[in-house]
Amino acid sequence: MIIVVRPNSTQEQIDHIVAHIHSLGLRTDVSQGIKRTVIGVIGEEDLVRNAPLAAIPGVEEIVPILKPYKLASREYQKEDSVIDVGRGVKVGGGYLGMIAGPCAIEGREILFEIASAVKAAGANILRGGAYKPRTSPYSFQGLGEDGLKLLREVGDELEMPIVTEVMDPRQVALVDKYTDMFQIGARNMQNFNLLNEVGQTKRAVLLKRGMSATVADLLMSAEYILAGGNKKVILCERGVKSFDSSTRNLLDLSIVPNAKGLSHLPIIVDPSHATGRPDLIPPMALAAVAAGADGVHIEVHSCPEKAMSDGPQALLPHQYAAVMNQMRQVAEIFHRTIPVPHGKA
Amino acid sequence: MIIVVRPNSTQEQIDHIVAHIHSLGLRTDVSQGIKRTVIGVIGEEDLVRNAPLAAIPGVEEIVPILKPYKLASREYQKEDSVIDVGRGVKVGGGYLGMIAGPCAIEGREILFEIASAVKAAGANILRGGAYKPRTSPYSFQGLGEDGLKLLREVGDELEMPIVTEVMDPRQVALVDKYTDMFQIGARNMQNFNLLNEVGQTKRAVLLKRGMSATVADLLMSAEYILAGGNKKVILCERGVKSFDSSTRNLLDLSIVPNAKGLSHLPIIVDPSHATGRPDLIPPMALAAVAAGADGVHIEVHSCPEKAMSDGPQALLPHQYAAVMNQMRQVAEIFHRTIPVPHGKA
Amino acid sequence: MIIVVRPNSTQEQIDHIVAHIHSLGLRTDVSQGIKRTVIGVIGEEDLVRNAPLAAIPGVEEIVPILKPYKLASREYQKEDSVIDVGRGVKVGGGYLGMIAGPCAIEGREILFEIASAVKAAGANILRGGAYKPRTSPYSFQGLGEDGLKLLREVGDELEMPIVTEVMDPRQVALVDKYTDMFQIGARNMQNFNLLNEVGQTKRAVLLKRGMSATVADLLMSAEYILAGGNKKVILCERGVKSFDSSTRNLLDLSIVPNAKGLSHLPIIVDPSHATGRPDLIPPMALAAVAAGADGVHIEVHSCPEKAMSDGPQALLPHQYAAVMNQMRQVAEIFHRTIPVPHGKA
Amino acid sequence: MIIVVRPNSTQEQIDHIVAHIHSLGLRTDVSQGIKRTVIGVIGEEDLVRNAPLAAIPGVEEIVPILKPYKLASREYQKEDSVIDVGRGVKVGGGYLGMIAGPCAIEGREILFEIASAVKAAGANILRGGAYKPRTSPYSFQGLGEDGLKLLREVGDELEMPIVTEVMDPRQVALVDKYTDMFQIGARNMQNFNLLNEVGQTKRAVLLKRGMSATVADLLMSAEYILAGGNKKVILCERGVKSFDSSTRNLLDLSIVPNAKGLSHLPIIVDPSHATGRPDLIPPMALAAVAAGADGVHIEVHSCPEKAMSDGPQALLPHQYAAVMNQMRQVAEIFHRTIPVPHGKA
Repeated sequence: MIIVVRPNSTQEQIDHIVAHIHSLGLRTDVSQGIKRTVIGVIGEEDLVRNAPLAAIPGVEEIVPILKPYKLASREYQKEDSVIDVGRGVKVGGGYLGMIAGPCAIEGREILFEIASAVKAAGANILRGGAYKPRTSPYSFQGLGEDGLKLLREVGDELEMPIVTEVMDPRQVALVDKYTDMFQIGARNMQNFNLLNEVGQTKRAVLLKRGMSATVADLLMSAEYILAGGNKKVILCERGVKSFDSSTRNLLDLSIVPNAKGLSHLPIIVDPSHATGRPDLIPPMALAAVAAGADGVHIEVHSCPEKAMSDGPQALLPHQYAAVMNQMRQVAEIFHRTIPVPHGKA
Repeated sequence: MIIVVRPNSTQEQIDHIVAHIHSLGLRTDVSQGIKRTVIGVIGEEDLVRNAPLAAIPGVEEIVPILKPYKLASREYQKEDSVIDVGRGVKVGGGYLGMIAGPCAIEGREILFEIASAVKAAGANILRGGAYKPRTSPYSFQGLGEDGLKLLREVGDELEMPIVTEVMDPRQVALVDKYTDMFQIGARNMQNFNLLNEVGQTKRAVLLKRGMSATVADLLMSAEYILAGGNKKVILCERGVKSFDSSTRNLLDLSIVPNAKGLSHLPIIVDPSHATGRPDLIPPMALAAVAAGADGVHIEVHSCPEKAMSDGPQALLPHQYAAVMNQMRQVAEIFHRTIPVPHGKA
Repeated sequence: MIIVVRPNSTQEQIDHIVAHIHSLGLRTDVSQGIKRTVIGVIGEEDLVRNAPLAAIPGVEEIVPILKPYKLASREYQKEDSVIDVGRGVKVGGGYLGMIAGPCAIEGREILFEIASAVKAAGANILRGGAYKPRTSPYSFQGLGEDGLKLLREVGDELEMPIVTEVMDPRQVALVDKYTDMFQIGARNMQNFNLLNEVGQTKRAVLLKRGMSATVADLLMSAEYILAGGNKKVILCERGVKSFDSSTRNLLDLSIVPNAKGLSHLPIIVDPSHATGRPDLIPPMALAAVAAGADGVHIEVHSCPEKAMSDGPQALLPHQYAAVMNQMRQVAEIFHRTIPVPHGKA
Repeated sequence: MIIVVRPNSTQEQIDHIVAHIHSLGLRTDVSQGIKRTVIGVIGEEDLVRNAPLAAIPGVEEIVPILKPYKLASREYQKEDSVIDVGRGVKVGGGYLGMIAGPCAIEGREILFEIASAVKAAGANILRGGAYKPRTSPYSFQGLGEDGLKLLREVGDELEMPIVTEVMDPRQVALVDKYTDMFQIGARNMQNFNLLNEVGQTKRAVLLKRGMSATVADLLMSAEYILAGGNKKVILCERGVKSFDSSTRNLLDLSIVPNAKGLSHLPIIVDPSHATGRPDLIPPMALAAVAAGADGVHIEVHSCPEKAMSDGPQALLPHQYAAVMNQMRQVAEIFHRTIPVPHGKA
C-alpha cells in the first residue's frame, strides 16, 4: 500500500503518519519526491489492507498495491481451474460449458421439449428457473420446489447436468437436493450471506456479475465462496448498466481475458440477459467464444410469445442450433472442446 | 402500452398482432402513421404489463405507458407519507429525519460517546451497524446480536430511536426485537426475499438505492415492502456508480424531487457513502436539504483513525455539529422541522 | 410521436393539446385508456420531430417513434454500403478493413518499419496520427503537415491506402491533399462543424464513437456527413466510459450487430483504444470479427517503450501478425474477405 | 509516479526497469515489499508524466501521484480566482454569477422580453445561443451573426454582460467582437483547437463539463485555456451521462466542492441541461447554491411551447423569479453576494 502525503505537510505530520503505521505493526518506506512525499506500507497482507490509514490527517490518497482477493487469484493458483459439473461435463481449461434452457420452468411438457432441442443442438448443461427474482411483486415468481423436481426429472431423462438459481440462504439446502450447480444471480452477487451458504456446499456455483460490479468486485464475491471451502466457482458475465437503452445491458466481453489474467476461475458469457434482444444474441455468443470464454449461457424457448418470463429475449430452438454450429467452428480454431454429457448424475 | 410495428409489415402481420392481443383479453387502438403503424393496448393494468408482447413477430418496440408500481405511486396517494419512526420522530411531510452515528457498532463506550455528541448536535435517529456487508470475507463483519443490544441500550438511555442494517431474511425476527427501523443496504435493494420479510413486519424501513438502480427500480423495491402490508418505507439516496473514481460514488440529488414527484414516500440522502470523503460531506448535506430531502444520514466517529469500518469517510463530532447548524438554517427557509426525540420506545 | 397525457387532466386540457398540435399542421389520433390518455401525432416527419410538444401543459411524456436519422438508416438503403477506400481496398458488405500502424507519426524510418511489418501481416490500411488530440497541453501534439507527408510517402511506397485524424475544420483542406480517409476522433464525434466540413469532401471518413454516445447519437453524427453529400462513412467502435478502471474504456461489441440492424453503414472495431492493454487487444480483436465487424483497427509499434504517444497500448509487430492469422481464420468461417491493397492511389 | 512490478519478476527485470528510467533522466526509489516490488519515480514533473513507462516489460501498473494540471491547481494558486465578466459582475470568491436567458436567440422582441424579466428577477449575466450544436442536421442551427448583434444590443440596453456559445475555432474572432464571455459547450470540452483559440483571447470563458468527463479531465481542458494565457476560466457542471433515462443527464453537484478543493477556478451549475425537466430545475438550483456553487445557469423562455430549441426544459419568467428569491436566501446563509450589473460594457 502506498500513502501519498498532502503537499506542504510538515515533517511533524509525516512523522505522525509513520508512527501511526508503526503502531499497527507495519513497516514503512518513505520516499521524498520534489512535489510529494510518498510512504510505502510494508507488512502482513491482511494487516495492511484493513488498516484505516486514509483517516490519518495529512494523508491525501491511499493507493492499494495488493489485490484484495487471494484464493481467487492467478498468483494463488497458476493453472486454470477445471470445474466438474457432473455427468462428465467440465468447464474451464479448454472445456466449454454450453448452458441452455428456458428462463423459467413452466411445466414438464414444454421443459422437456426445449431441453431435448438444446441437447440435440449440443448444449451440455440444462438451465431453468424455479425461483425467479422479478422486479415486480406482481409478476410470476416461479414454481418453487415443484419446478426443481421437474428440472431434475428432465435432466435425468436426457442425461444432462442442471443449473438453477438460488435467491435466499434459506433455500440452499432444498435446492442442493435437486441441482448439479447453483446459480447466484446478478442482483445477489453481493448477498454475502447467500455466498457464505453456498460456500458451505460441495456443488458448483455459477456466479453472475452484478450490474455495476468491477472485475475486482466479482472476484471478491468469488472469494467469499472459496473462503467457505467450495472451490467450484464459475464466473459469468451478463452485461452491465449503460447509458444506451437500446440494449437491456451492455455486454462487457473484455472481462473474459481480464478475469482470466487475474484469476484461475473459468468464466462463461450470457448474451441473453446482456442484450435482451434475440437479434443480438447470436453475434455476441460467437464473439464470446472468440474472446476465450469457457462457455455460453443462452435462454431458449419454443414459444416465446407464451413464455411466463423474459420470453422476448429467448432464441427459438432452430436459432440456437444454428448459432451452436457456428460456435463449434470458432471453438475448433482455438482447440477448445464441448463435452457431451452422459451417464448418471 | 404502445406497440410500434416494424416498417413494411403486411396487413396480415398487423392482424396477427391485434388478434394475439385480443386473445389475452386486451383491447387495441390501431393508428396508422405515414411511416409507422402504432397499436395502443388497453385493458386491466396488470394484464397489460405482464403480457409478453415483444416476442410477437413484427413488433419493433414496446413502449410502456403505465408505471409498474402502484402502492408507491403519487397517483395512489396524493399526500406525502409521514412515517413515525418512534419517540416522536416523524419523517416526511416537512419533518426531517437526521440520522447519525458510527458505521459499525464497536463497543459500548465509544458508541455512547458518539451518540451523545450527535444528539447534542441535533440528530434525531441513531444509527450503527451490527451486521456489516463487507466486500471482503476477511474484513470485520460486525458484532451481531451483541451489537444490537448495545445500540438498543444507548438509544434508550439517550431517548433516541435507532436504525440498523438487516442483511438476511433469517435475521429479520431477531433484529425486529431490538430496532426501531430496519435498514436495507444498497447491495440488497433487489434482495426480494429480504424485502418480502421486512414487508411482513410493522417497523419502518430505510430502503437504500442500489448502485445502479433507476428511480423506477427503487420504487419497485419499495412496492415489494408495501405490497407485504408495511406502509412505513423511507427511501434513501446514497450515490450511484460512476466513471469518476475521485469520489466513492456519484450522489444523485435530482432523485429527491424526481422521486417526490412520482411517489408519496419520504426520501433521505446519505452523503457519507455517496462521496466517501469528509471534505465533500458537509456541502452535499446542505445541498440535500436545499433539494428538498426529508432527512440526511451521516456517519460520525470520534476517532476515525481507529474505526473498524469506513473510518475515513466519517465526520468528527464537531464537524457534524457545524454542518447541522447550517442544515437547520437552510431547512428554516423552507419551513421544515427537525423533530426532537424523547420519551419511551 | 406519441404524447402521454398526465393523469387527471381535464377534457379542456386535452383539447388544448390537440388544438396546439393541429396548429402546427399535424394530425392527431386520441386513444383513451383506463388510466391514461395517449395522443398519436401524425404528419410530415421533420415537422413532427421538431415540434416542441413537451412544453405544452398537461403533457407527461413524449415518446418518439420515428428514428431521427434518415440517410444513415437501413430503411433508406437496404443493402450494406461498401466503401471504396482506395487501392482496391473496400470496407463493408463482406470486405474487412484491417487498419494498423503507430499511434503517432514519429519519423520516416520507424514509420516505414512498422508499416512494412503490418502490411506483411495482412493489414490493408495504414494509420498514423499527424495531429494528436492530447488531454494535456504539455504532451506531444504531432508533427502536423510534415507527418502527413511522411504517411503519404510510406503509403505510396508500400501501396497502402492511409487514414489519419483531422481535428479542426481549418485542417480539412490540407489533410484532404494527403490522405485517403479522414479519421474523426471520439472527442470530435459531435464537433458538428467538423462533420459538416468533411461532409463536403469526397474522401471516406472513419467516424469514431464518442465516449458516451448511444448508437443513435453515432448515427446522427454520420447523418451530418451524409447530409453534406459524402456517402463514404465508416463507423468505428472504440469503447465507452465505464465504472471499472481496470480497462481504459469498455468495448461495446454489441454495437456491431446493433448498428448493422439500424444502418447500412459498415462498422469497424478498435480494441486498442477501447482496452488500452496489449493483453486484451488480441482476444477483443478476434471477438470483433466473430461479432460481424467490417474491420479491426489496431495500433502497432516496434518499440512501445519509446513511442511518443500511447506506447503502452500498442502491439508488437509479431503479436499483430499472430492475431491477424487467427482473425483470418475466424473471418473464413463467415465467408468474409480481407482485400489486399495494390496499385496507384 | 509509482511503478508496481509484476510478482515473480527477476532481479534482472527490475534492474532493466530501473536502468530504463535512469536513461530518461529520472531517479528511482526501489521498495521491496513482501509480495510486490514498488519503484518510485522522482524527477522533473513533465518528464515523469510523459515517460511511456507502462510499456516496459515487467511493469504491472503505473500509479500517477502528481496531478497532470498545473495552472488550474489549488497548489499553483491558493486564493479563489475572481473573474471579472464585465459591467461590474464578478464570479468566484463569494460573488455569484446568475446566468439566465433563452436557449437560442430567436428575435429581438422575444429576447428583450425574456432578458428584462430575468434582469428584474436578479439575473446578472444574459445568455442566448447564436450558434447551436444540434444533434440533428435538420434542426434549427441558430441565427449566427444576426443573433450575436441582437444579444449585444439587448445586453447593452439592459446593462447586462452577455455570454454565448462558440463552436468552431473559425468563429472565435467574430464572436469576440460581440460577447463578454465565451461559452464552450459540453460536446466541445475536448475540442483542443477551440480551447487553444479562446486561450489566445482576453475574454472570460464558461467551460462546460463534457458528458463523461472526470473532474481531472475538466481541469485539463481548463489548463489548455490557461496555458494559452487567458486566466479567466469559469467551470460549469451540466450533468453527466447516466443509466436512468428519467432525467436528461445526471447532475453531479459533488463536483462543486471537489473542483474547488483541487482548483482555484470558480464553478457554476446548469440545472437546465442537467435535468431537462422544469420541475427539477428549481430544487437543483437551490441545491447548487447550498453546495457552494459560484453561480447558477438557467434557461428561461416566456413561451416554451414556441421555443425553437429546448423549449420543454425552460422555466417561465415567474418561475425563475420565484427560485431566484429562494436562491438569494440560501446564499445569504453563506454570506455570498449576487452582484448587480450596471454601466458600460
